[in-house]
Parts: sequence; structure tokens; C-alpha cells
Amino acid sequence: MTTPAHTEAGHPAVTLAQALIRCPSVTPDDGGALALLAERLAHAGFVVEQVTFSEAGTPDIANLYARYGTAEPVFVFAGHTDVVPPGDISRWRHDPFAAVIEDGKLFGRGACDMKGGVAAMVTAAIDFVAAHPQFNGSIAFLLTGDEEGPAVNGTVKLLEWAKARGEVFSHCLLGEPTNPSALGDMVKIGRRGSLTGRLTVRGKQGHVGYPHLADNPVPALLRILQSLIAPGLDAGSDFFDASNLEVTTVDIGNPATNVIPGEARATFNIRFNDLWAPQTLRDEIGRRVAEAAGEARYTLTFDPTNAVSFLTAPGPFVDLVAGVIAGRTGHTPRLSTTGGTSDARFIQASCPVVEFGPVGTTMHQVDEYVSIADLIALTAIYRDIIDAYFAAGSQAS
Amino acid sequence: MTTPAHTEAGHPAVTLAQALIRCPSVTPDDGGALALLAERLAHAGFVVEQVTFSEAGTPDIANLYARYGTAEPVFVFAGHTDVVPPGDISRWRHDPFAAVIEDGKLFGRGACDMKGGVAAMVTAAIDFVAAHPQFNGSIAFLLTGDEEGPAVNGTVKLLEWAKARGEVFSHCLLGEPTNPSALGDMVKIGRRGSLTGRLTVRGKQGHVGYPHLADNPVPALLRILQSLIAPGLDAGSDFFDASNLEVTTVDIGNPATNVIPGEARATFNIRFNDLWAPQTLRDEIGRRVAEAAGEARYTLTFDPTNAVSFLTAPGPFVDLVAGVIAGRTGHTPRLSTTGGTSDARFIQASCPVVEFGPVGTTMHQVDEYVSIADLIALTAIYRDIIDAYFAAGSQAS
Ligand SMILES: [Zn+2]
Ligand SMILES: [Zn+2]
Repeated sequence: MTTPAHTEAGHPAVTLAQALIRCPSVTPDDGGALALLAERLAHAGFVVEQVTFSEAGTPDIANLYARYGTAEPVFVFAGHTDVVPPGDISRWRHDPFAAVIEDGKLFGRGACDMKGGVAAMVTAAIDFVAAHPQFNGSIAFLLTGDEEGPAVNGTVKLLEWAKARGEVFSHCLLGEPTNPSALGDMVKIGRRGSLTGRLTVRGKQGHVGYPHLADNPVPALLRILQSLIAPGLDAGSDFFDASNLEVTTVDIGNPATNVIPGEARATFNIRFNDLWAPQTLRDEIGRRVAEAAGEARYTLTFDPTNAVSFLTAPGPFVDLVAGVIAGRTGHTPRLSTTGGTSDARFIQASCPVVEFGPVGTTMHQVDEYVSIADLIALTAIYRDIIDAYFAAGSQAS
Repeated sequence: MTTPAHTEAGHPAVTLAQALIRCPSVTPDDGGALALLAERLAHAGFVVEQVTFSEAGTPDIANLYARYGTAEPVFVFAGHTDVVPPGDISRWRHDPFAAVIEDGKLFGRGACDMKGGVAAMVTAAIDFVAAHPQFNGSIAFLLTGDEEGPAVNGTVKLLEWAKARGEVFSHCLLGEPTNPSALGDMVKIGRRGSLTGRLTVRGKQGHVGYPHLADNPVPALLRILQSLIAPGLDAGSDFFDASNLEVTTVDIGNPATNVIPGEARATFNIRFNDLWAPQTLRDEIGRRVAEAAGEARYTLTFDPTNAVSFLTAPGPFVDLVAGVIAGRTGHTPRLSTTGGTSDARFIQASCPVVEFGPVGTTMHQVDEYVSIADLIALTAIYRDIIDAYFAAGSQAS
């Protein structure tokens, strides 16, 4: 195993991350980011396909698939080049698309989520295939421009497209920012699913002085929401915390203090573990709501979702990744299933997937950055992982 | 006792009600209504004072005080000439300020609330003093243009003004529309008080995927609102239903289904009986909120209110009014304390007050009307009440 021999200033992962940040790729815009990566990967010998997906009512999205080698196993790096909007630019210390380096940090929108990770994995893969042009296996890239947006024309369709071509994947590493505070803290081996429900309780509007002529929907709403909050949905599973429900909003919008409202609305979101599928969870919520509602009239709907939970249970692949991280950082990473959703929920259907990337403290925030030292160390970790992965086969390193 | 001898078409209460409806007196505008009444009352021998009250932040409001006689007892007719806005005029069958008569009904904004009642009481009083110019007692009028609005520059200040002049009142009849369906159904001998509370629960905003980093205010809000709804405040008193609390709105306004809100607000209104004063009720609510809140941070405020409850317990005055109504209509009126607030809550501090007026089914609605037959019968009832009231003294009828 070798570390790429470059000085910090001119390290190719750093210069590539800078070039990517300078592409203003706020979803759904690509800003030239994928073309830049296509050029680098093609130059290194990858077969590169740029594919744009469309769907009525959503913007067209650019995606990239690249592969080096034809044999199995096929190790996949996955990631996204789109970023969330920078917000109020005047609050940033540096232009969010200038990729300024200061005090050992590379600043910019997407620095840690996840142009830093993409730059590290592309740099590591190019370095590996240059060192081992005839290794026994393949390395592939699944890169999308639609992770931060509706995620309709991104990884889901790229996987369908690859499947239709007969592509088969063995294992995948997704480079999202997984570390809460220091590189090596945490590998994500799973994520909870997400389900959003919307409840409307209908009563009858009237004057507060004549409550018998009206029917206030609030008491039923309170009963129903209480029944969703307690008891809890489960006590957690082997690798997951308990599923969690949050009421995200309650709205009536009645400005008149002498008027009983006719309708009350609430929205809730559930992050659920592997004890539930979206349908079993919808059934349980529906049962609770019906019971608590009593005589009250209500409608309960669920937003369309493909946010199922995913889990890559500990085993040889997780051990390989965690072992490399421990060797490079001195930390034994926690194997976590907490946090938000990621594209790993789509990839799990094709192959086992784990996530490891930069420290995520500034993701989606003003002054987002990635530490230059972390970016270089992450590149080395990715390189070591591919080395170890293919060494485990017949012909590696 | 005599009924004013007029034909229906030219009955003076009907023509006066029409003239009043044609004054566009949407609060705070007077539209000439009080000047019209001043002229009629002065012509009949009343001493009339028109007084305008002002207060920073509220519009100036015209009010009228009139008195015939100098002796006691002083019988007071009270009412308001302001009306609520007509709303969408195109939805009315007739112009709301045209006072059109059709099918035995006088249509217009204020027809039943309460220009009909004012026209009836002024007509009855003018008729009475013409018949009994030397009766032993006095008749006074308290008429305001600020009942439907903030009620700051209306009856409260008119009573203070009268008190400063040394005026003393014996009994009062307020001509608000009290009848649910037929003239004679209901006399209001009391009204509940009204108190509005506003609750804000503060948590900490965050991402639904990381609930341990956030603090959702909704569970505490639900607990607190539940504790306000049940148990009830009381079981009612001799003349009142149980006090009643309605949650009128709950608002968070969080559109993001992946965000735990930082703050939740609710407003509630309590209609309370004579077992409570505003302060004892504020104390009870404060106690319940503090107990249910637990560790949650919240603020609880109450809107400034002078809406105390009032009660004129059954006795000779109530019996006199109810007896006249039964005699004229054939209904023994229910003695009620239900419904909204009225200016009677202010008058009670000066003298016993009861309310009786037209059928109120169309008050504040499109196509508000008063039945011509009811308006004439109401005038006769008011006339009979004054007859009986002063006959009970030394020199009447
Ligand atoms: Zn990301
Ligand atoms: Zn009124």
C-alpha cells in the first residue's frame, strides 16, 4: 500500500476538489462538474458515459457512469456533484464558488458534501489503475447531479440504466460526509428510511360563544398526534436506534380569537429502521389515527417515498473498510445507522454499500469547508481500500 | 297599556329603522345615524348630548346620551348604531344600505343587530313621553357607535362620562337581538366573560434525522393544550352553563418535512361564567400550563380584556320584562346566559341590565333582516315595559 506522493499544495485531490467547487452545480445545474470528471477518468483509461435523464415536471439532470476493467469483482465508487444553494453569499467569508484555501481549509459550497469526497475517490482510482493497469476486477463510478434535489433523475435511473446494460456490481463505497468530528469517527453501514404523513381533521367552523353549533377539530387533532408520539414505534434493532416520529408542523391559520376553526392540519415525518417497510409503517400509523380519531372526520395521506431503510450488516466488506480507516487514522470507526437519508438506499438493491467520507460539520452551512489534511488522508484511505479489496482477490497491489 | 296606533307600512319604528339602515355606519363611521336619533329625541323633549371619545391608536367615536325627566327611577335603553361590514355586496339580494322591504322583511346591514332594536326603543319611548309627559321618573338613552369594533371609545367611556355628570341609573334594557328563532324566545339575564390566551412553546430547530440535536416543541404543546381542554373548568353555576375553552388556532408554519420546528404557537379563548373573574381564571390557566409544560420553555400571555361575566339574577325587574314579553307573544321567554359578549358587561356596574331584542338568526350575515311584524311587536313590548315599570312606581300609564 502506498500513499500518493504529492506535496500538500499541489495534491491532485485538492486541485480537483477546487476545480469541482468552481463549477456552480446547484441542483439541477451541472455547472461543468461532470464533464470535468469525464475528461479526467477517460484520460486515465475509464470508459465514460454521460447520460441525461428527464421526467415530466422535473428538470433534466446530467449523470455519469464510468468503468475501468471488464472482470469481476466490480468495486463501485458512488457520489454526487450537485450542491445545495449557498444562501446569503454576503455571510460567507469567501465566495462559495471560489474554492479559496486558507489556514489548511478548502472553503466552498460542496467542499465536504461532497465534492471533496468525489475528488478523493477519483484521484485514488486514477492512481490505482495507473499502478495496476491489469488488476483482476473492475472499478466503476456512479456519479449523479440529483442527490440534493428531488432525486428523481439521479441514482435511481442511473442504476436502472446500468442494469439494462447488464452491469453487475459487487460492492459500493459512497463518499458522503459521515464523520461527526474527526476523520475516522464513523462509517455508515445503514440509514433509516423516511416517511412523511399529512393529517387533516375536519370539524365545523362557528362562534366561540356558541360551541354547540360548531365542532372544534383541535381536540381530535391533539388526541391523534399524541397517539402517534406515544407509545414509540419500536425499541430499535440490532444495528438501528428506535424509529422516531417528529411532528414537523401543525397549522390552522385562524386569526379570529372568537371563531372556532373548521379544519386543522398537521404533518409528521418518521425515520424508521429495518423493522419496518413503508407499507407496514403506513398501516400502523393508519391504525393509530383511526383509533384516536374516534368520531372525528379526517384524511391521512403519505407523501410518495422511496426512502426505505438500508443495512449492510457487519462482515468481511465492512471489516475491510473499517480496518483501513483504523490503520490510517488511528480511530476504530463506529458502525452507524443514524442521520438522514442518502443515495445508498437506492444502491443497496444492487450490492452491499457502505458510506465513508469527510467530516460533515459544515455541510449545507455558510463557510462549508474540508480540511486539506483530511482530503489528502481520505484519498489515501480510498486508495488503501481498493488495494485491500483487490488484494483479497487473486491479483492485486 | 296601549299599542301605538299606526299602519304597518307607515309604522314609525319601521320608517326609523329604514332611515338608520340608510346611514352607512360601519364601525368606526357614524354615517349620520346618531344625529338622526338626536333630532328625533330632542324633538320629543329629551335633553340630548352627543359626545365623541378619542384614544391614541383608535379612531374617534360618536356617542349619544339623552334623558327625559329628572326624577328617579331612571330607566335606561341601551344600544349601538354601528354595524359590521356587509362583506361581498354582490352576494346580497338587496343593497345592504338600501333598507328594502320585501315579503314582510326589512333587509339591510344592522336590521336586527341592532338598528331594529334601536328604532323600536326610541319609538316606544317617544310614544310614552308623549302620552305621559309628567310621569314620575326618567328615561335615558345610552347609544354608542363602538360596539362591533374595539369597544374602547363607546359604552365604557359613555358610562364614565355620565357618572362624572352625576347621572344615576336604576335599570337598563339593552336591545340586542336575543331571540334564537321567534320573538319572545329568550331574554338574556347574563353573559359569560371572555378571556383570550396566547401560548408559545420554544424548542430547538434541527434536522429530523438528528432529533437528539433538536428539541421539538410539539409534544409539550400537545400536553399543555390537553391540560387546558380537560378537565373542564367548572360544572356551571345556578344561571350559567359550564365555562368553555376553545383552542382557536395552532400554528407552526414549517413547510420543510425534514426540519424539526423551533417554536409552536397556539391561541385559545375561554367563555367563563360567574364562578370566575379574569384574574382567578388567568391564575388557573397559568397553573395548568406550568404543570403540563414540565421542562419545556414557554410564554403565556393574555389579551387585555374587560369582558367580565354579568348576571342580573331573576327578581322583580326580570319578572316584569319576562311577563310583558309573555303577554305580548304568548311565549314565556327562557332566561339565558349563553352566547357572545355585549355591552351589558359594562352597564352591570351601574345598574341591573337585561337584554331583549329582535330575532338574531341573520345577524352579521348576508341578507340580514328584521321581520316587520316583529319590529312592530317589539316596539309594543318596549312600550309595555316602560308602562309597567313606571306603573310600579307612583305615577304611570
Ligand atoms: Zn451529500
Ligand atoms: Zn349588536
